[in-house]
Amino acid sequence: MKTWKTVSIVGVGLLGGSIGLALRRAKLAERVIGVGRDLGRLRRARQLGAVSEVTDELEQGVREANLVVVCTPVGSIVDHVRRVAGACPARALITDVGSTKSTITAALSQKQLGGVTFVGSHPLAGSEKAGCENASHHLFEGRVVIVTPTPSTPESAIRKTVEFWRQLGAEVRRMSPREHDRSLAMTSHLPHLVASALAASTSPELLSLVATGWADTTRIASGDVRLWEQILVQNRGQILKSLDKFEKVLNSLRESLELEKYRKLKSILTKGKQHRDTVGS
Amino acid sequence: MKTWKTVSIVGVGLLGGSIGLALRRAKLAERVIGVGRDLGRLRRARQLGAVSEVTDELEQGVREANLVVVCTPVGSIVDHVRRVAGACPARALITDVGSTKSTITAALSQKQLGGVTFVGSHPLAGSEKAGCENASHHLFEGRVVIVTPTPSTPESAIRKTVEFWRQLGAEVRRMSPREHDRSLAMTSHLPHLVASALAASTSPELLSLVATGWADTTRIASGDVRLWEQILVQNRGQILKSLDKFEKVLNSLRESLELEKYRKLKSILTKGKQHRDTVGS
Repeated sequence: MKTWKTVSIVGVGLLGGSIGLALRRAKLAERVIGVGRDLGRLRRARQLGAVSEVTDELEQGVREANLVVVCTPVGSIVDHVRRVAGACPARALITDVGSTKSTITAALSQKQLGGVTFVGSHPLAGSEKAGCENASHHLFEGRVVIVTPTPSTPESAIRKTVEFWRQLGAEVRRMSPREHDRSLAMTSHLPHLVASALAASTSPELLSLVATGWADTTRIASGDVRLWEQILVQNRGQILKSLDKFEKVLNSLRESLELEKYRKLKSILTKGKQHRDTVGS
Repeated sequence: MKTWKTVSIVGVGLLGGSIGLALRRAKLAERVIGVGRDLGRLRRARQLGAVSEVTDELEQGVREANLVVVCTPVGSIVDHVRRVAGACPARALITDVGSTKSTITAALSQKQLGGVTFVGSHPLAGSEKAGCENASHHLFEGRVVIVTPTPSTPESAIRKTVEFWRQLGAEVRRMSPREHDRSLAMTSHLPHLVASALAASTSPELLSLVATGWADTTRIASGDVRLWEQILVQNRGQILKSLDKFEKVLNSLRESLELEKYRKLKSILTKGKQHRDTVGS
């Protein structure tokens, strides 16, 4: 299995920390440099074993990197990748873990990066819990990571990115940035919108009367507001299309209850159960 | 702690089974009779320790009961309670575990039951997993059980019902059937509708791209279709009102994304997170 000489992780939170833990546990990298703004948090990440070195100066932290993984909020990724590309070795590979891909990859072609290669990635792993304290070396095991090359991405860089995620135990899927954003709008971003709307529309005085159903259905509404705001804004076009689909089904349910025509109700409940049962717990 | 001489449980599934297990584990009942239609399943419930005796003849199973707990689907509760009332001792207490209360209690006054007393109950405990195999003696510990007397329910019967649920470790809340149905429409029935709509509107080919967010948000869509259809139909009036509230918030989110006015988006995400964080994991 290939070992990376120097991997720099920009943003050592849940995902960045988990990447560091996985790399170090399997001895896949000689050095794992944690880059961030808050030295106190970076030192805790080092204590947790997620990184071997830390720095709060981005340019310095990526100067010797063979691989840089940018794990900052989607609204900052373009800026961070540009800064990384300006400071890292010309042959380094840059990837990210952002939940949206079209906006990011459109701004980060090899040409725009002065010859450095960026390949977009999105691990479908995460949690409503943020921070390196919740990181885990097996966060990516068996999880899907979507790698989103553009027509101009060199094949060798795609292969290296795919290999990297496979080393962490992930199942890699290759998709265009647009296809990624269309799919994830439905499978991740819309559920967030719906969970937030449900939680927000429940009056506070009813919160002592909720059970596991409400708790499950709204769990992701606990996620970081700033992070999710950026995701929803960046992928708004596709999310609005997914919302149309959802509202069409919800309207059928409404009509079915209003008109007391329950065949439609039953067929939607049945279809929902079939889809959900496919996924497992 | 009071011991019941004979408790009959009509319908020994997840809830009925858990009641039996809890009663027997804490030695709160001398006899726990399981009543159902399927003798094979009843015998498995006996093997699991949920009941001490079984019968597939309802009238016979409740003839000596001091307490009868009807744990059948909401669409059958009225009929089962009526049959129980016609066969059990005049001084027996009947309660249920149905997720709706107005329709049920309206049909089951003491007068309508020939003098036998029914007190509606709804334990806010359950799971998308059905069946006695998933029952647990501590299902009700620390959970809220709502007891829904009507103005004509004798105070002594209410007290006995409250005491019964407290013996199983529950925290009991007293509420009118209407207030129950209004509250649960928002905290339980609407989430089910929304989860089902979300699961049903996700195309099957996208199901391999879901992560924990989608899985959590749609988990309850796995619930038994027939049971949930009955619940949604029985409480349709209140559910439609809750759906109005939810759709109002969802429309604000839509507008915010459409018009790129993100203050509203942020305020709803923040409110949703606040409500969700109140509840805990």
